[in-house]
Amino acid sequence: MIVVIQCKDQIGLVAGITGVLATEQLNIVSLREHVDKAANRFFIRVHIEQETDSLALEVKLQQVLPPDAVIKVNPLPEKKVVVLVTKEYHCLADILIRHYFKTLGAQVQCVIGNHDTLQNICQRFDIPFYLVSHTQKEKEAFEAQLTSLVDKYSPDYIVLAKFMRILSPDFVARYTGRIINIHHSFLPAFVGASPYRQAYERGVKLIGATAHFVTNELDEGPIIAQQIIPVTHSHTSGDMMKAGKEIETSVLAKALHLVFEDRVFVYKNKTVVFE
Amino acid sequence: MIVVIQCKDQIGLVAGITGVLATEQLNIVSLREHVDKAANRFFIRVHIEQETDSLALEVKLQQVLPPDAVIKVNPLPEKKVVVLVTKEYHCLADILIRHYFKTLGAQVQCVIGNHDTLQNICQRFDIPFYLVSHTQKEKEAFEAQLTSLVDKYSPDYIVLAKFMRILSPDFVARYTGRIINIHHSFLPAFVGASPYRQAYERGVKLIGATAHFVTNELDEGPIIAQQIIPVTHSHTSGDMMKAGKEIETSVLAKALHLVFEDRVFVYKNKTVVFE
Amino acid sequence: MIVVIQCKDQIGLVAGITGVLATEQLNIVSLREHVDKAANRFFIRVHIEQETDSLALEVKLQQVLPPDAVIKVNPLPEKKVVVLVTKEYHCLADILIRHYFKTLGAQVQCVIGNHDTLQNICQRFDIPFYLVSHTQKEKEAFEAQLTSLVDKYSPDYIVLAKFMRILSPDFVARYTGRIINIHHSFLPAFVGASPYRQAYERGVKLIGATAHFVTNELDEGPIIAQQIIPVTHSHTSGDMMKAGKEIETSVLAKALHLVFEDRVFVYKNKTVVFE
Amino acid sequence: MIVVIQCKDQIGLVAGITGVLATEQLNIVSLREHVDKAANRFFIRVHIEQETDSLALEVKLQQVLPPDAVIKVNPLPEKKVVVLVTKEYHCLADILIRHYFKTLGAQVQCVIGNHDTLQNICQRFDIPFYLVSHTQKEKEAFEAQLTSLVDKYSPDYIVLAKFMRILSPDFVARYTGRIINIHHSFLPAFVGASPYRQAYERGVKLIGATAHFVTNELDEGPIIAQQIIPVTHSHTSGDMMKAGKEIETSVLAKALHLVFEDRVFVYKNKTVVFE
Repeated sequence: MIVVIQCKDQIGLVAGITGVLATEQLNIVSLREHVDKAANRFFIRVHIEQETDSLALEVKLQQVLPPDAVIKVNPLPEKKVVVLVTKEYHCLADILIRHYFKTLGAQVQCVIGNHDTLQNICQRFDIPFYLVSHTQKEKEAFEAQLTSLVDKYSPDYIVLAKFMRILSPDFVARYTGRIINIHHSFLPAFVGASPYRQAYERGVKLIGATAHFVTNELDEGPIIAQQIIPVTHSHTSGDMMKAGKEIETSVLAKALHLVFEDRVFVYKNKTVVFE
Repeated sequence: MIVVIQCKDQIGLVAGITGVLATEQLNIVSLREHVDKAANRFFIRVHIEQETDSLALEVKLQQVLPPDAVIKVNPLPEKKVVVLVTKEYHCLADILIRHYFKTLGAQVQCVIGNHDTLQNICQRFDIPFYLVSHTQKEKEAFEAQLTSLVDKYSPDYIVLAKFMRILSPDFVARYTGRIINIHHSFLPAFVGASPYRQAYERGVKLIGATAHFVTNELDEGPIIAQQIIPVTHSHTSGDMMKAGKEIETSVLAKALHLVFEDRVFVYKNKTVVFE
Repeated sequence: MIVVIQCKDQIGLVAGITGVLATEQLNIVSLREHVDKAANRFFIRVHIEQETDSLALEVKLQQVLPPDAVIKVNPLPEKKVVVLVTKEYHCLADILIRHYFKTLGAQVQCVIGNHDTLQNICQRFDIPFYLVSHTQKEKEAFEAQLTSLVDKYSPDYIVLAKFMRILSPDFVARYTGRIINIHHSFLPAFVGASPYRQAYERGVKLIGATAHFVTNELDEGPIIAQQIIPVTHSHTSGDMMKAGKEIETSVLAKALHLVFEDRVFVYKNKTVVFE
Repeated sequence: MIVVIQCKDQIGLVAGITGVLATEQLNIVSLREHVDKAANRFFIRVHIEQETDSLALEVKLQQVLPPDAVIKVNPLPEKKVVVLVTKEYHCLADILIRHYFKTLGAQVQCVIGNHDTLQNICQRFDIPFYLVSHTQKEKEAFEAQLTSLVDKYSPDYIVLAKFMRILSPDFVARYTGRIINIHHSFLPAFVGASPYRQAYERGVKLIGATAHFVTNELDEGPIIAQQIIPVTHSHTSGDMMKAGKEIETSVLAKALHLVFEDRVFVYKNKTVVFE
């Protein structure tokens, strides 16, 4: 059983929480706690050996915690996700494979693409695919179609698996803290379009990929995970893109794993990640 | 202030410990806990914002813990160390530099070499250097000279910074859990002598280095930290040795840092490391 | 166009080879050369801007090279491969995905499993799957069935994508230098079965994976690529296995990419890899 | 013996060069060649087994190369360097240690600091240290003092080992392609001052360091080497700075090693590095 809590910091929080657990005869296998002193913010993740009544435990924990505490006891074992894609296959295919073999830790409800390139791979895995083209319509109309589809599924998270359209503040606000993106650079280097071309022209010796929550600022949301891969003078911009796809796939997989196991807390514009 | 505790596991340990801290009005900045279920062993490291009377706190903690608990409250801020060397400079020089600029987290009391190669560098840093040659004498006599010197300094730790003599079980037993070695391979690959030659002949694509506590089994003690570096077909065995020195230096520095900050617990033949 | 040559070393080889290319008005984009002095062996890979008649060029190159030279001009752009599997999906699925999206650099002719666990995923990608069970029959009979199937396809390479049976010397000899295996450890550490259990018990801080050509010595063939991933005390043997699967997938993909692009030379028990 | 050549690309260059070597009965141990197609630029580095008359060979090579060719035959085995520092010790100390043990591949002629913090460590290694304070004087006067000192030594390279003053275009122009800097971020992220504070505030999960040649654009010169180290939410900006120092030291050491072994070519705003 997992307990995760975020609240303002004060003396005695861990004692209060673990006191409740001890009274319930629950054994702690692993505990991670962090306080952001500057933000006066408290984060804890407790892995408990036994199972118990989640709701009852949550009530008891609430009594020893400040009123602003966000408590999750035994959070959903399988998150529900909708995946948005454009044309590139690598991140989506990795998600579909893990989903098919039940190692994703989430249920892929559907895939929405603004191109139909990835329809066939979804069909092969019996995952509903919806084409929502962005052409010949206003952004508002495009996003209305997206939200109408997304809302039908009420997903816990929306994963942008190389979805190459910029979402409006309204769309982002509708799903605050629930949209995860993979950006093809080591943020904050190379914000925006064509990061591999930028990297090639700058002559960097490493390229990166960043998984982050989406906020209204382009590529400025809280970072979940980052990874790099070495490149040399012999890499063209196209070679960098190819090499980059490997780490994009890998870092998005890692970020999803962390989020789906409730190891990621978001606050201000940062994350606390208990790996 | 730091509190580290190791004991057998039971329900309520964290509640007991943090209850004591809360009663004392101590605020926890960061807490790491781990239970080895197989060994039924409990490990905790608590970083506390305030300072308080260490001895008094230790007594209070003892009352809520099982009798076998090993408790350290506010452990020594600066460990005392004796360094043993042979001829290679890289690990020793790194230690001397960090010591000189007060970033080692330990006080280097003296250096003992079985060759005089590194005497001059020690002198340049005003560190006593003792030559204890192993030639023309029995191992017993050699080690008697070593222990007599070491014991004069009562060090907390003995660091084997590329000391190329195998120590006897008696010597090791005398300083149980206090001898740290750097082995020039990714253990358990290439145990024993000439690991770089072995690596070269095997045609590996990565070489490694391992920092570990010394036990009676050659290169079999609890591992603290490991690191690797890529190599290619173009590396001769000598090139591998050169590349290896870089990670030997780096991994020993990291291991010492972890040990000196009381982040490493030893039990059975393993370590728990709260980085 | 790519030219790769291996032969015994002597003075003037590069001059001879590039002289032929210059006479043919061929421009070299990238050239990698290596001599193993100990083995007196010469290796070269030349990337040429233009295309030309491969056979004619090979004849001309032969004239400036020693008789033992193995020359490949413009080697097969798409290798043919047969994949052998048992129950674990991760390496196979990665291969199937890359194959489906035409980024594998090879044609997957069929998959052979000694269990039927992975039949369904093959069907979803329209790849023939053959069940060849090893139970209730002699090893000889089992391998006879394998070779009969394999030979029907005349593959360039046989990929053991987590195939958990040890192949006999006869089988290996039949496909010398053409069988690629992924071993779930950082060879030569943890040869043989249950490397993750061995790694867990040893308390290592890194685990590895190794892609190598198969020879008669178990896990002793020429290494193509290796990779590692950090682990901690909190990883059970099962967690290590999970973490390991990620790098097994990644390192096998990398090794296949290198082999399929003719970047790997094998000699004695080693490889020369021009990345 | 090493030969390095840079010139505009044309057909037959490798044949011409290696033809000269073969005629001279010189054996090539290792050869790396690269063509930047976009820039139509040719780069080669040849490692030759034997020694021969450098000047004579250079003349013969010039005859088979375009007039713009920059040829170095058997370049200086030991470069001469002047090191500029401010207060941080880690990069300088690493250089001094390698220099003292004759593994730097260069001769440290002197150290110039705009503070006297590092005077003592230089004295311990018998390296001349000059204090050139930047306070209470114009930048022009400050740099005049620097150049006057530097020019006295005619160094091949000027190493900015955490020198925290921005140099004027005039100063940079005086030593074009000969000034190497270590920047404490993964360029182009976090250009300019306080990169660790920027990194902390952005909540990144990796921090980096970049060694590069200095040009007039701040932190915009050709990159030689880059490296990263993972960080977490528990790193304060100060912790990031500490962690960063480790890779700053390591990446500057690597870059210097590459430059001193004549493995780095500069052109436009990039490098070709034959590792």
